[in-house]
Amino acid sequence: MLRHATHDPAVVSVEFEDGTRARFHAIWLRDNALDPQTRDPGNGQRLITIGDIPAEIAIQAAEVAGGDLQVTFAPEDKTVTFPAIWLAAHVYDRDQNRPMGWLSPGITTWDGGFAAPAGDWTQVHESPAAKRDWLAAVAEYGFAKLTDGPTAPGSLLKVADLFGYVRETNYGPYFEVRTEVNPTNLAYTGLGLQAHTDNPYRDPVPTLQILYCLENSAEGGESIVVDGFRAAQSLRNENPEGFALLAGYPARFEYRGSEGVCLRARRPMIELSPDGELIGIRFNNRSSAPFVDVPFDRMEAYYTAYRRLGEIIDDPAMGVAFKLEPGESFIVDNTRVLHARLGYSGAGSRWLQGCYADKDGLLSTLAAMRVAQPEAAE
Amino acid sequence: MLRHATHDPAVVSVEFEDGTRARFHAIWLRDNALDPQTRDPGNGQRLITIGDIPAEIAIQAAEVAGGDLQVTFAPEDKTVTFPAIWLAAHVYDRDQNRPMGWLSPGITTWDGGFAAPAGDWTQVHESPAAKRDWLAAVAEYGFAKLTDGPTAPGSLLKVADLFGYVRETNYGPYFEVRTEVNPTNLAYTGLGLQAHTDNPYRDPVPTLQILYCLENSAEGGESIVVDGFRAAQSLRNENPEGFALLAGYPARFEYRGSEGVCLRARRPMIELSPDGELIGIRFNNRSSAPFVDVPFDRMEAYYTAYRRLGEIIDDPAMGVAFKLEPGESFIVDNTRVLHARLGYSGAGSRWLQGCYADKDGLLSTLAAMRVAQPEAAE
Repeated sequence: MLRHATHDPAVVSVEFEDGTRARFHAIWLRDNALDPQTRDPGNGQRLITIGDIPAEIAIQAAEVAGGDLQVTFAPEDKTVTFPAIWLAAHVYDRDQNRPMGWLSPGITTWDGGFAAPAGDWTQVHESPAAKRDWLAAVAEYGFAKLTDGPTAPGSLLKVADLFGYVRETNYGPYFEVRTEVNPTNLAYTGLGLQAHTDNPYRDPVPTLQILYCLENSAEGGESIVVDGFRAAQSLRNENPEGFALLAGYPARFEYRGSEGVCLRARRPMIELSPDGELIGIRFNNRSSAPFVDVPFDRMEAYYTAYRRLGEIIDDPAMGVAFKLEPGESFIVDNTRVLHARLGYSGAGSRWLQGCYADKDGLLSTLAAMRVAQPEAAE
Repeated sequence: MLRHATHDPAVVSVEFEDGTRARFHAIWLRDNALDPQTRDPGNGQRLITIGDIPAEIAIQAAEVAGGDLQVTFAPEDKTVTFPAIWLAAHVYDRDQNRPMGWLSPGITTWDGGFAAPAGDWTQVHESPAAKRDWLAAVAEYGFAKLTDGPTAPGSLLKVADLFGYVRETNYGPYFEVRTEVNPTNLAYTGLGLQAHTDNPYRDPVPTLQILYCLENSAEGGESIVVDGFRAAQSLRNENPEGFALLAGYPARFEYRGSEGVCLRARRPMIELSPDGELIGIRFNNRSSAPFVDVPFDRMEAYYTAYRRLGEIIDDPAMGVAFKLEPGESFIVDNTRVLHARLGYSGAGSRWLQGCYADKDGLLSTLAAMRVAQPEAAE
């Protein structure tokens, strides 16, 4: 509900029932009008372009009607109603200054003391609430396990089916993670792998990764996951200049381990939105190419920050460790959470399958489920 | 070939045969060492982490041997050779200052006078050189046509097979672009569509789009493509502050036209790398959501820049127009090139199929083909 509204030709000022105030520009209101000539009532898409709005658009009248805002625009002489609740959800007249590397409100970071969120295969497939909670864990923590699943090869594709679509790559729709004789990738050996994000040499990078265990009787081979956002914020808190260097210059990544494949990317290790939100981590010792975009006089400081970020990531207090059992899997937000494995050898076998997928489908499925079955109603 | 090398503990300075000089830091050289203990000789991946390199790494000796650089590192007492040609290709001791919105050297922008690059379906499938040239056009211009292809539904998937993998989405592996009774998207109507990039509400955005014509006997329905990089640079040249606003604040995009789908993204209309390279355009009137991340006192200037960018994009002098014939298709770099269509109606029919794919596969295939069959050898 709105208490009242005032206006001049360029701006409407409103006061909400709780006493907060906000201003909205004429052009912004007109562009976001909700009437059926501006927005298609069926699919919600905008029917006009920015050029369809007169450059001299102005507020002719603005008043509160039934608690909502009614605006008449000149020169169109067009009247549009903006629900108070819609206006409250779209206020932009607020302090927009946030610290470098701020996090979206839906994100919660964690370290080694974190109790790994886990879903049960059968429940997640049969109960919409269980599925929603599992998807919500991936969105909030960037990581979740799935337990008690089948041990048939290819089962990982059913994990992707829960929310979206596999991203096929040169590694196939999915790939086998086990020891090979002439490995095209060090992942296909028994070597330990430092915590890393996958495929930073690919642009766009796959934003989700699923690793599914079929056999794991070898000695070693434990999995470790690390919250890259927590690591980056730790670096920022102790060394803001170092954080700014890793965010401020592109790194380079490359993979050409197979014939016919030559993947290269030029992206920063720490990715920020233009207004400083922490939105991505790329960290991979195996596929880092020479960094050639950092000026000479900042290269040493860049490497110092890189080394420190690596130390934070390698710190055992940062990682959640577990050994996957056959039929268990985990999913990581590959733009945030790093995964490592300890080396393995000896008798027994270790066979995982991996695939990539993307966050758009997962977050869309989650958002639609939240609309259909709000958590508050439980 | 190197003429000579000097060093102190932290830096090696070399002079190349052509008289140019460059400096390389000890830590950078050690991290990028090419010996088989540092890089796997088979797949080229790095075997060490940044933490494996002693923090006190220093140059113990550096000399030219056979024209290449031979460096001995302390405290490891490890000697590594860096080929002169490799060093020349990885010089970072150079002026790194470039204008905001600079373009990668492989990019050539264009306007309406551009003769659209086109490949012939049969040649591109049968001749590696024809295929390489067609892929190279997509990489350089962000757009290419393909002519004289089959008119069987699903043929567009064979276009993606040329270089990579389809990105499946909620629209399916591919989708039908023709008039529907209850359209979930305005694309599925006879309405004209302003030049736009597809799916800006998806993150990661699909980086390639293929549109394939099966029938096109309706009145109208011409396709128009516009180079978004050219448009953005035009805006920058006439209004650097406006360009900086569109690059400096995230826009918002949303699509929820179908049940179970709720896609949202928070990304700028003009995307720059941290060091100012122009790397992406998002522009779509239909799916722009209210912009709420621009501070109140910059919103009017933001909208002025947005309006001007729209005018540049709508300028007929900017667009390349054509009417697809059955069996013809085009591919666009969806992070750069916008596509529009004119409205259509009347007798006859218009039936296109569309799908998404990603640039990683295309650029990898192209790079590998260039290694296998250098253009200079033709």
